[in-house]
Amino acid sequence: MRLNKKEWFTEAFENKTAFSVRYSQKLHASQSQFQQIEVFQTTAMGRVLSLDGCFMVTEKDSFVYHEMITHPTMAMVSGAESVLVIGGGDGGTITELVKYPSLKSITLCEIDAEVVSTCREFFPEISGGLADPRVRVVCSDGAAYVKQFTAEFDVILIDSTDPVGPGKALYELEFYQSVKRALKEGGAATFQTESPIMMSEVFGSTVRNLRLVFGDEMAQPYLCVIPSYPGAMWSFTICSVDKKDFSSPSCSLSQDSIEGLQYYGSDVQKAAFVLPPFVRRLIAY
Amino acid sequence: MRLNKKEWFTEAFENKTAFSVRYSQKLHASQSQFQQIEVFQTTAMGRVLSLDGCFMVTEKDSFVYHEMITHPTMAMVSGAESVLVIGGGDGGTITELVKYPSLKSITLCEIDAEVVSTCREFFPEISGGLADPRVRVVCSDGAAYVKQFTAEFDVILIDSTDPVGPGKALYELEFYQSVKRALKEGGAATFQTESPIMMSEVFGSTVRNLRLVFGDEMAQPYLCVIPSYPGAMWSFTICSVDKKDFSSPSCSLSQDSIEGLQYYGSDVQKAAFVLPPFVRRLIAY
Repeated sequence: MRLNKKEWFTEAFENKTAFSVRYSQKLHASQSQFQQIEVFQTTAMGRVLSLDGCFMVTEKDSFVYHEMITHPTMAMVSGAESVLVIGGGDGGTITELVKYPSLKSITLCEIDAEVVSTCREFFPEISGGLADPRVRVVCSDGAAYVKQFTAEFDVILIDSTDPVGPGKALYELEFYQSVKRALKEGGAATFQTESPIMMSEVFGSTVRNLRLVFGDEMAQPYLCVIPSYPGAMWSFTICSVDKKDFSSPSCSLSQDSIEGLQYYGSDVQKAAFVLPPFVRRLIAY
Repeated sequence: MRLNKKEWFTEAFENKTAFSVRYSQKLHASQSQFQQIEVFQTTAMGRVLSLDGCFMVTEKDSFVYHEMITHPTMAMVSGAESVLVIGGGDGGTITELVKYPSLKSITLCEIDAEVVSTCREFFPEISGGLADPRVRVVCSDGAAYVKQFTAEFDVILIDSTDPVGPGKALYELEFYQSVKRALKEGGAATFQTESPIMMSEVFGSTVRNLRLVFGDEMAQPYLCVIPSYPGAMWSFTICSVDKKDFSSPSCSLSQDSIEGLQYYGSDVQKAAFVLPPFVRRLIAY
């Protein structure tokens, strides 16, 4: 069948596969200094944010991404007080973080201020955490920003786009080294590391590079399912400066006591680190 | 962007979302007694089989489906000798089953003989197990076929399409009762139960109906990721006639010793039964 361009928003991945969602209204379209920003109202996925034609956030499934980048990491770092989020201008990761009373300082470093303002306007529930008084928004290049810190943050979350355009610098060894240096002792950083099934080379090389910087056992990928992203099987990689058993949440505040979680639980965290054999092979040397 | 109909095969799901794959050649198109059968040669997903316009099998990701419907069930039934597969005319599930030396009798009951012959021709690797001398192919209505048996099979796998068209009868209570009756003591049956995220109502009602028939603790859903299916987060539900801890594989022949598995492992089985909170809520009464 043919999809009518006026009713469907389509993201084609490498001109080989495509995911489309039918929309009733295009709510917003602008060209920022960095990228094209669009917001659609859809039936199947609620409101959808796209950046340069790629699905970034949907009201239907973004809870998976935001819960799974945030809670596994927070569960590993008891009593975390300071967090830095790089990217993540939609505010969804921040909205998960503000659920932790222990946090005193939450910094969002997003390169594109227009992404933040667009999400404040069109995704009030997802971006709601940005209004928390502990949150500071810095509109700056994350790779440059993190360079200035040494042993500053308990947790760093790299909520990046794909390794093209404004997100490219967030996939370089130098950036990984800066993130490691900016972590306090006992801290952890989690990186968005793409789809092991549709972007298997990027996934494999990113994890191997993180292991070069943090050490083989200090960087462990884990999986979740995000239907609106290419391949849907999605990975994050959690890295620490001291050896941790990432699959066993150790935080004194049990994440299971946070109300309203839809995807995360300590049992889900443990299961997420179990990798199918084809994924394990992608990260073997 | 707009996709050129002559180069892209598109499955639209409920006219709300769509997944497309670009093809270089349409290798086959026919209308059987039951459905439209097409085979495409694609770059991203290898060869693709569609039935009535829906993705059924792709060379890229069908290993997930076939391994995950087969091995968790086989791992629960020590020394299984007789298996019935209902649906599954592509032969992929059979190809996993023939890896078990303990099996003496493997019956495939597929309603549409043209699906079997098409897959033998265009998907030789996936359908290869059909040539095993222990395999018998019956082209018949699975719901009617299974009715004639009492305590006949150690394992029954319901490798069905969606609950429309030829697959509809495989989602009825009467069918579930027939399957239960056809199982031997100690046996187990596994049903394809759709996507908890994109078909949440069908998933919820199917699991609840299976629990009506088999008992609450005797029917447990588990998850895997199949990128070419709507929502990609996919479920099967394993049912037994005696209480089992499905997440702990107990088979004397360790599945981990089967060579060439890409998705399954006993650790993956255990993790697959861990359900995110939103999935657990869909099956609560």
